[in-house]
Amino acid sequence: MGIIVQKFGGTSVGSVERIQTVADRVIDEYHNGNKVVVVVSAMGKATDQLVSLGQGVTKNPPQRELDMLLTTGEQVTIALLSMALHQKGFEAQSFTGWQAGIKTEKVFGNSRITSIDTKKVEEALSSNKIVVVAGFQGITEDGEITTLGRGGSDTTAVALASALDAERCDIYTDVDGVYTSDPRYIERAMKLSTISYDEMLELANLGAGVLHPRAVEFAKNYSLPLEVRSSMERAKGTRIEEELEMENSLVVRGVAFEKEIIRITVFGLTNEVTGLSAIFSALALNKIDVDIIIQSQLGDGTMNLSFSIKEKDLERTLQVLHSKKESLLFDRIESEDSLAKVSIVGSGMISNPGVAAKMFDTLTRENIAIKMVSTSEIKVSVVVENNNMLAASRALHTAFELDTQNVPI
Amino acid sequence: MGIIVQKFGGTSVGSVERIQTVADRVIDEYHNGNKVVVVVSAMGKATDQLVSLGQGVTKNPPQRELDMLLTTGEQVTIALLSMALHQKGFEAQSFTGWQAGIKTEKVFGNSRITSIDTKKVEEALSSNKIVVVAGFQGITEDGEITTLGRGGSDTTAVALASALDAERCDIYTDVDGVYTSDPRYIERAMKLSTISYDEMLELANLGAGVLHPRAVEFAKNYSLPLEVRSSMERAKGTRIEEELEMENSLVVRGVAFEKEIIRITVFGLTNEVTGLSAIFSALALNKIDVDIIIQSQLGDGTMNLSFSIKEKDLERTLQVLHSKKESLLFDRIESEDSLAKVSIVGSGMISNPGVAAKMFDTLTRENIAIKMVSTSEIKVSVVVENNNMLAASRALHTAFELDTQNVPI
Repeated sequence: MGIIVQKFGGTSVGSVERIQTVADRVIDEYHNGNKVVVVVSAMGKATDQLVSLGQGVTKNPPQRELDMLLTTGEQVTIALLSMALHQKGFEAQSFTGWQAGIKTEKVFGNSRITSIDTKKVEEALSSNKIVVVAGFQGITEDGEITTLGRGGSDTTAVALASALDAERCDIYTDVDGVYTSDPRYIERAMKLSTISYDEMLELANLGAGVLHPRAVEFAKNYSLPLEVRSSMERAKGTRIEEELEMENSLVVRGVAFEKEIIRITVFGLTNEVTGLSAIFSALALNKIDVDIIIQSQLGDGTMNLSFSIKEKDLERTLQVLHSKKESLLFDRIESEDSLAKVSIVGSGMISNPGVAAKMFDTLTRENIAIKMVSTSEIKVSVVVENNNMLAASRALHTAFELDTQNVPI
Repeated sequence: MGIIVQKFGGTSVGSVERIQTVADRVIDEYHNGNKVVVVVSAMGKATDQLVSLGQGVTKNPPQRELDMLLTTGEQVTIALLSMALHQKGFEAQSFTGWQAGIKTEKVFGNSRITSIDTKKVEEALSSNKIVVVAGFQGITEDGEITTLGRGGSDTTAVALASALDAERCDIYTDVDGVYTSDPRYIERAMKLSTISYDEMLELANLGAGVLHPRAVEFAKNYSLPLEVRSSMERAKGTRIEEELEMENSLVVRGVAFEKEIIRITVFGLTNEVTGLSAIFSALALNKIDVDIIIQSQLGDGTMNLSFSIKEKDLERTLQVLHSKKESLLFDRIESEDSLAKVSIVGSGMISNPGVAAKMFDTLTRENIAIKMVSTSEIKVSVVVENNNMLAASRALHTAFELDTQNVPI
């Protein structure tokens, strides 16, 4: 009998009725002869409500106390789901993060799992109980309650699945799988039946939003098969696993896009040796995420530097740079807003030269100006104007044959 | 520097504004140069809301999962109060029941504290932090979350205070102290400045409702001074401590009353030896609380037995008795409803014969029929008709000089 880990997000457990539906999905898997571990998030808007309750007390709550507050959200869900399972005649046992042995580093608000002591969960499984675990939370060596940050319940599910040597980890969400692009905007987007960890990782990082990148990374490291499925419908989802040879036939597997990008350009950096590291260390210290970085050497010994940030970080970025103008030794700064990033992803690219060229060519035909370019082994990203984002994405989706029936469903 | 434990109930922490007020009371005590441990309940109606959320899933939730659900209520409060203290510039640290080392027996829903490992709380206190502990909850030896049942936060506060060897435990409530009777009904009720543990215990058990009896018992066993105070006003409350000689001057210290009592009479019990124990074992097995018991021997070798129960238990009581009619060997059962219990309490009674006589005399002058009588060393209770309850209480309050200025305030 194998172990299956199922993860249900906030929308899937958003009401008492939905919790009953989730219980039925859990029971199905149990009836299939599997040992089942369920990881759940807080109900619907519960986390937001707790945050605003805290905001009512202070605009700047200590992160430790915020974690103390927020972890009650998942604790409510595990109790209710266990009750629903009992009501339907199944032995279920709920576990908070610390009861499930999920140890983390001592960082509040965005902690990482360091190890999992699965003893108690395994005890419950071996007495044929369904195990219900609170996602998003853990405990430090010295007994402090922590949270895992955004997408934390995905991470809990994947980490538990690998610690338990589970056969599979199913991520139930409000979409029914991973698509070649966001079907809300790209009408011809198709559901993929399989995708590799690396492709999923690039898509997750690019804001495809189905799965948290940290969870995908974890699954990849432990070769744990993931499946993204709908919590509402019974259709098959998308399986994420080690790459299969035959799948390389499709060069590009998906098109991702993300709005609200700002390009910052620093002109006339004179200190060639320490300039780059000084700038990015200062930004990192201020927790500003930098995405694409482009550096151009000028003939006169100075250089220009461009990088992209999120729109919300603009003000702080400018503050940090200006406050360091003396030591950073640059000439001036410019910023351009209302930009977007469009990326094509596919592990087939590695062995297919000319993918980037085809991308640029496609965009040029559409009269879309490319502001920045960044490439990795399985991804090419371009920065374009916000109002070109969807046109660019649709054109690329068509150009790379993602619209057609070639996509294995 | 002494340790003061403060306990704030659900009404006192019922809103974000009230939590700010509580924070101010905590800070006052801290400014007095004390180390402060605060025990809090769930916010206002939070526990009721959680219960009805659970009821939405199943009418009959497993008690373990109900405890898992309910303990989130206090966890929310400790986080918010700690945030409020931080906001006001004070270092505070919240502790769930298990973090505060509150160990209980493995009983869900109504557990008892077995020991408290105060190490972490003491660490926090010695680094001058204000400690905020979730009331009502604990952890079993094997890591299960339990709740302490009704009035559990009082018990947490008193148990923590004695484990920490605190100077005092202050119970903040929505009343400002212990009164000679319930001031909502007995207009001349006066606030007591002090009362002994035993007197408080009788009053608490009699439904005076200010303090949970279990907490009073605990405080008595450890000679821990308690004070009942208002969370809204700054007036002095009522101190509960070892009896002082001078206080014996007042024979009766309070009048308590309780509605919805039923008298059951079992006629013609023939088995004198085993009859009593058989009946009360059967009732105890069915978790029916029996209060006053009166047994009368008849000339013919049979006996009649009367006892009082709560109105809600009537149906089950009759069921239990009738189902055992064969083995219990009785003739018939009668019940009388719409009764109430009125009690006078005072440790001065021990050395004052004639207190019961004065009580009966007072009621007779008021033409109030007495249905049952029960006495202890420091208490006399009578059962009267519901609609005589308040008249009886007022008459006794006056007769025993509780109306007058004799009461030390």
